[in-house]
Amino acid sequence: MQLLIPQWLLCLNHTTEVLENHAVLIQQDRILAIGPRDELLQSHPNAERIDLPGQVLMPGLINCHTHAAMNILRGAADDLALHDWLQTRIWPLEGELADAEFVYDGTVLAAAEMLQGGITTFNDMYFYPDQVVQAALDVGSRVFAGITVIEFPTRYAAEAKQYIELGIAARDKFKHENTVHWTIAPHAPYTVSDDTFRHMAMLAEELDLPVHCHLHETASEVSDAESRDGTRPFARFEQLGLINERLMAVHGVHLNEHELLTMAEKGATLVHCPASNLKLASGIAPVAKALKAGVNVVIGTDGAASNNKLDMWEEGRLASLLCKGASGDATAFSAGELLKSMTCNAAKALGADHLIGRIAPGLQADLITIAIGEAAHQLPNHNLVSKLAYSGASRDVKHVWVAGVQVVQSQQLVGKRAQLVGEIMRKTQRVWQTRVEKVG
Amino acid sequence: MQLLIPQWLLCLNHTTEVLENHAVLIQQDRILAIGPRDELLQSHPNAERIDLPGQVLMPGLINCHTHAAMNILRGAADDLALHDWLQTRIWPLEGELADAEFVYDGTVLAAAEMLQGGITTFNDMYFYPDQVVQAALDVGSRVFAGITVIEFPTRYAAEAKQYIELGIAARDKFKHENTVHWTIAPHAPYTVSDDTFRHMAMLAEELDLPVHCHLHETASEVSDAESRDGTRPFARFEQLGLINERLMAVHGVHLNEHELLTMAEKGATLVHCPASNLKLASGIAPVAKALKAGVNVVIGTDGAASNNKLDMWEEGRLASLLCKGASGDATAFSAGELLKSMTCNAAKALGADHLIGRIAPGLQADLITIAIGEAAHQLPNHNLVSKLAYSGASRDVKHVWVAGVQVVQSQQLVGKRAQLVGEIMRKTQRVWQTRVEKVG
Repeated sequence: MQLLIPQWLLCLNHTTEVLENHAVLIQQDRILAIGPRDELLQSHPNAERIDLPGQVLMPGLINCHTHAAMNILRGAADDLALHDWLQTRIWPLEGELADAEFVYDGTVLAAAEMLQGGITTFNDMYFYPDQVVQAALDVGSRVFAGITVIEFPTRYAAEAKQYIELGIAARDKFKHENTVHWTIAPHAPYTVSDDTFRHMAMLAEELDLPVHCHLHETASEVSDAESRDGTRPFARFEQLGLINERLMAVHGVHLNEHELLTMAEKGATLVHCPASNLKLASGIAPVAKALKAGVNVVIGTDGAASNNKLDMWEEGRLASLLCKGASGDATAFSAGELLKSMTCNAAKALGADHLIGRIAPGLQADLITIAIGEAAHQLPNHNLVSKLAYSGASRDVKHVWVAGVQVVQSQQLVGKRAQLVGEIMRKTQRVWQTRVEKVG
Repeated sequence: MQLLIPQWLLCLNHTTEVLENHAVLIQQDRILAIGPRDELLQSHPNAERIDLPGQVLMPGLINCHTHAAMNILRGAADDLALHDWLQTRIWPLEGELADAEFVYDGTVLAAAEMLQGGITTFNDMYFYPDQVVQAALDVGSRVFAGITVIEFPTRYAAEAKQYIELGIAARDKFKHENTVHWTIAPHAPYTVSDDTFRHMAMLAEELDLPVHCHLHETASEVSDAESRDGTRPFARFEQLGLINERLMAVHGVHLNEHELLTMAEKGATLVHCPASNLKLASGIAPVAKALKAGVNVVIGTDGAASNNKLDMWEEGRLASLLCKGASGDATAFSAGELLKSMTCNAAKALGADHLIGRIAPGLQADLITIAIGEAAHQLPNHNLVSKLAYSGASRDVKHVWVAGVQVVQSQQLVGKRAQLVGEIMRKTQRVWQTRVEKVG
């Protein structure tokens, strides 16, 4: 049993109240109690006391959209229009390189980057989800892995049926791991057939899983579908019964007001990936309108090939600033809304509000601390919530726990994971850089 | 004499060529030579050898628009519309607090934050420029201080004439410091009269100084001027003879195509502050059009009250991403253009291309190194220029020199400056936080 005693406590229990002189008691993987420091010290004299002076303790951040393995492709395709980016760079690179080893190594790098930046959970969509999960376990992150389906053959699988079988088998293999979770992850409207979508929607209901899917990322995705099918992808999703509280619709740059209202009404989530949308010139998602309509808006970094950083502090801040600037309303997507979108609201989207995203008794001990006042860039601290939202940075994340295990201590990875990550880093410089270069 | 031997050398001498196996020889405050490592080792056997393995050596970054002292107000006014931000928060706070002590302390914090993030030069506009300069000297930054004028009384001065006299006196006081430079800094079209602008334009020419001024920040600035004067502020600037190669026009969110073409033709500079423009919902500056027109576009963070970070890596990356997203052209404001805008092009804007912003013989030794490959978030390195532009971060800045003096070593401030910054940090927590709270 451990008693964490921070200077400030931000439970994000659907509020942004800041507590002082409070402590959090954890036992094994769970939060046991929260209360006034002195009371908990008195009632639990044998708990190991962990003082966290000058730090705020809060729930770990949740990155709601990644292709973690693509860390190996970071910087391999920049300053390119989406079409060139995909067709001349990403697909050829993946076609040549994206095997099980690539996925494991890339996900190790990504999980390490995320943990050190305070991201304790990531929601992934990629090939070889068994490798994604193994990497997350080895580094110590919580993961939502996708039972990913794309309707063309890759190194990983030949057709929709096989993608699903492999995904289900991976889910069975790791079913006893309490930091491993699953989603149904059809890639996108333009790469998955109606039959497969129907099958996946059924699976999602049977297995009680979220559906994680790209939707309305680009204007041409929408206009192509209109020419081809005579309907917008969103309307097709409605007909397929996919617009519901399970849906995590990623990007949603080209959603109209009617579609946003429908999402709000049905309890669907918009996963906003602002850096990726800007980098690939997909546009600016209508986030102010989505928030106003009551849509659950959460944040994702996307993969490192379409963002170049897996940094939720930077991504969240960008989301809020961009929302203010694009809507002309400086009060939109406030600091408090932003912090909730990266914690409790993200957990809700993942159907995991009972497990993560808040500091409350019974939830998993996925916790981080942020140093306030150790360096000039952190000062002053007039308002802790806006300080975290607008001045927060990965470099200020000090300690990280996932399911009660301390995985980062004083900014360093703890234990064997440090050695593993070091090995994959050296291998990346030695092997992956050369292999990416060879593809051209 | 010192011989710096990095793994990669990025001189940014108006190109983005990356050199390997090269070294830079510095003597006192200057760069003496650049050349193949082995040749320089042989020709200068007595130079102190400084190996920088796994690091890129490049010119220090130049932050082209700051109100550094406002670091003390960071986080004191967030999620507010511009009018409320200024009238209910910033002006009352400044009216109560912005004295010489405030300016010195705030600038010490800002200079420390910037140096540790690889910003060796900042271009400042604020009251008490003598204090700004003293703080920059004490921390070790290069500074362009403004002979700042605003046409209403403050704690600092009563009227335009006195602002100018105090600025000139400060310039005389520090005239022997080779890291101290000056600009003529009228605040904005809506706070400075035609007579004062004319006087300042004359001074700029006499003293051969840049003119640093806010221009077309908000739509209402332009429409108010049209109603009041029957003309846009830009046209008024043209009539006053201010649109020329001396001008650093800050924000320029609401410049039209004709105005951008005029700026390009006259050699004027646009100082783009994307975070501040988004935060205060001023809009998105037409950067793709400005670049296409041939305007010299450089980057500024603005003050910490309108941005919350003085981080040029984040600001530059935002500038490029926002330009791509807002213009619909993913190839716009490329990685190479971005790095030049933060170094050699910024030096040109400041009339200091012969002194800073590049690594070339005879220039000042304002240098930084960036670690590549020490942490998972830095890998891989497929393209060094895009890596710095899109994955670069303050936390990766390792060593910093200003005028040949090493001011940051392994991310820590060197020598007495560490002690000074520590003292001001403690004072900020003890004194300034309370004083800001009292104003309300």
